[in-house]
Amino acid sequence: MRELASWSDGAAKSAILDFVARVTKEGGRDYVPPSERIATFDNDGTLWCEYPMQVQVFFLFDRIKELVERDPTLRDVAVFKAFLGRDMKAIHALGKKGIMEIFFATHAGMSEEDFERTTRAWLATARHPKFGRLFPHCTFQPQVELLEFLRSNGFKTFIVSGGGIDLIRAFAETAYGIPPEQVIGSSVKTRMEVEGAHVDIMKLADLNCFDDREAKVQNIGLHIGRRPILAFGNSDGDLAMLRYVRSGTGARLALLLHHDDEVREASYDRDFKLSPLADALDGAEAYGLTLVSVKRDWRSVFVDANRQDRASA
Amino acid sequence: MRELASWSDGAAKSAILDFVARVTKEGGRDYVPPSERIATFDNDGTLWCEYPMQVQVFFLFDRIKELVERDPTLRDVAVFKAFLGRDMKAIHALGKKGIMEIFFATHAGMSEEDFERTTRAWLATARHPKFGRLFPHCTFQPQVELLEFLRSNGFKTFIVSGGGIDLIRAFAETAYGIPPEQVIGSSVKTRMEVEGAHVDIMKLADLNCFDDREAKVQNIGLHIGRRPILAFGNSDGDLAMLRYVRSGTGARLALLLHHDDEVREASYDRDFKLSPLADALDGAEAYGLTLVSVKRDWRSVFVDANRQDRASA
Repeated sequence: MRELASWSDGAAKSAILDFVARVTKEGGRDYVPPSERIATFDNDGTLWCEYPMQVQVFFLFDRIKELVERDPTLRDVAVFKAFLGRDMKAIHALGKKGIMEIFFATHAGMSEEDFERTTRAWLATARHPKFGRLFPHCTFQPQVELLEFLRSNGFKTFIVSGGGIDLIRAFAETAYGIPPEQVIGSSVKTRMEVEGAHVDIMKLADLNCFDDREAKVQNIGLHIGRRPILAFGNSDGDLAMLRYVRSGTGARLALLLHHDDEVREASYDRDFKLSPLADALDGAEAYGLTLVSVKRDWRSVFVDANRQDRASA
Repeated sequence: MRELASWSDGAAKSAILDFVARVTKEGGRDYVPPSERIATFDNDGTLWCEYPMQVQVFFLFDRIKELVERDPTLRDVAVFKAFLGRDMKAIHALGKKGIMEIFFATHAGMSEEDFERTTRAWLATARHPKFGRLFPHCTFQPQVELLEFLRSNGFKTFIVSGGGIDLIRAFAETAYGIPPEQVIGSSVKTRMEVEGAHVDIMKLADLNCFDDREAKVQNIGLHIGRRPILAFGNSDGDLAMLRYVRSGTGARLALLLHHDDEVREASYDRDFKLSPLADALDGAEAYGLTLVSVKRDWRSVFVDANRQDRASA
């Protein structure tokens, strides 16, 4: 397959090809040894769709439905009521962090391995209401190609997401070729449980870290331990990471995706309550960000689900 | 070079060779796909020497000396006094965690990248008082061979240490072939700092996580996201990790190193205040741990420093 086949020829694709050529050219001024070729990608809205709401929110709808079926008294809990009634105003008012906290609270008491099984089962059957696709098929084909292209050039690719770390880990290896240990995300506190000879990691209800904005930079420090040379995001939640990467010495590339294709996907930015894009867009030039437009820069948007279905069959 | 050349023939070496053969045999009952071949190693006392005290404590001696030279009034701070006077009773009384807290407090205000430069400079010149070697040459040759052997069999090798994560990251890639993103350790809280266009991660004084005992298991969950199939430790601080790994389904190997070679290295276990080995040793059989004896199982102990010096020259 031709490199970056789903990317249209234009400034964004050129910037990527040029950057990769420079950092991989041995003896060149911008050469970066393979072990330092770290690339970090946001997930929601960057690697897969997040509009009209993040995949995790759909997951949470189903989780709450299931909890209420088991215990109908939960129906009257205000926040459950909002989700059951799809009260978008109330859900938006919670914000991305508030939703994350409810997500974690509703999975407290599960072991990490139980959560993984549950998540995989959901991802194998639930469908996106707008696109009619299984959620793992709501990933963006140009980005899957970009991840592969970077890896074939010696890069190590990471996800740095505001979404729950374990949900992403349940599908990132199959969908993106990114193994669990290269996924960073929001996390819950845990407890080690010993039962006889068996040791498990149990999820608690409390937030450990909401991996958004400055926390993305701090978590890159904690999990990766060196400054990436390339980052890709799509919202103000990614701006700190993009600036951190951009301000390293040597060649750096910080890419910002703008969802501007109402026909093939969705068109949104500053008014999207669950993850607005305003400061990063307005300051893109000042911050040295390379803008990527879905409409202009991507020949196709979603992965070829048929091909993926065949591959996983 | 012959596989595991510095390991003597015996039960420990056989257990390793047998385990690796089983998990890599395609079609075999114990086959594990490469992406799941995760191995976690403790660092202090497992990959390099920690007796009579951890390398980090020597680092701290020098750091405190430097701080007191800059500000002589610090000489009267009780804890600094203990370090300056090498008051081992007072230092032992702090415990490994207390020492870690002082270590972090004395590096507050540095950026992560400044800390890395400082650490690399120290590691390039300071020598172990007992062995007369540069500290990166106090690494164990049989373990370096084991790490290489595992990687050549498709394993991904990680460090999970009670020591400071950034200190280990400053030498682990050169010494062990383990990149920064595969190092887990104790960590300090950080703050993102923006100065003009420049973004940095600054170290604060407060402990984020002391990566010992149960925390090692929790951090494997956070950083790696799946249960390793092999773990190697040498103290009670590693027991939780060893049991966690051992209790997974399928083939698992949990190894426990016993320092019993007074002549070539050191002989210590339950009375070593800074990292005792008692419960793990007493319960090794019940916990299904494979014991490794320095005296019996290792033909040589330390890396060939001359060879390493030549390699890095």
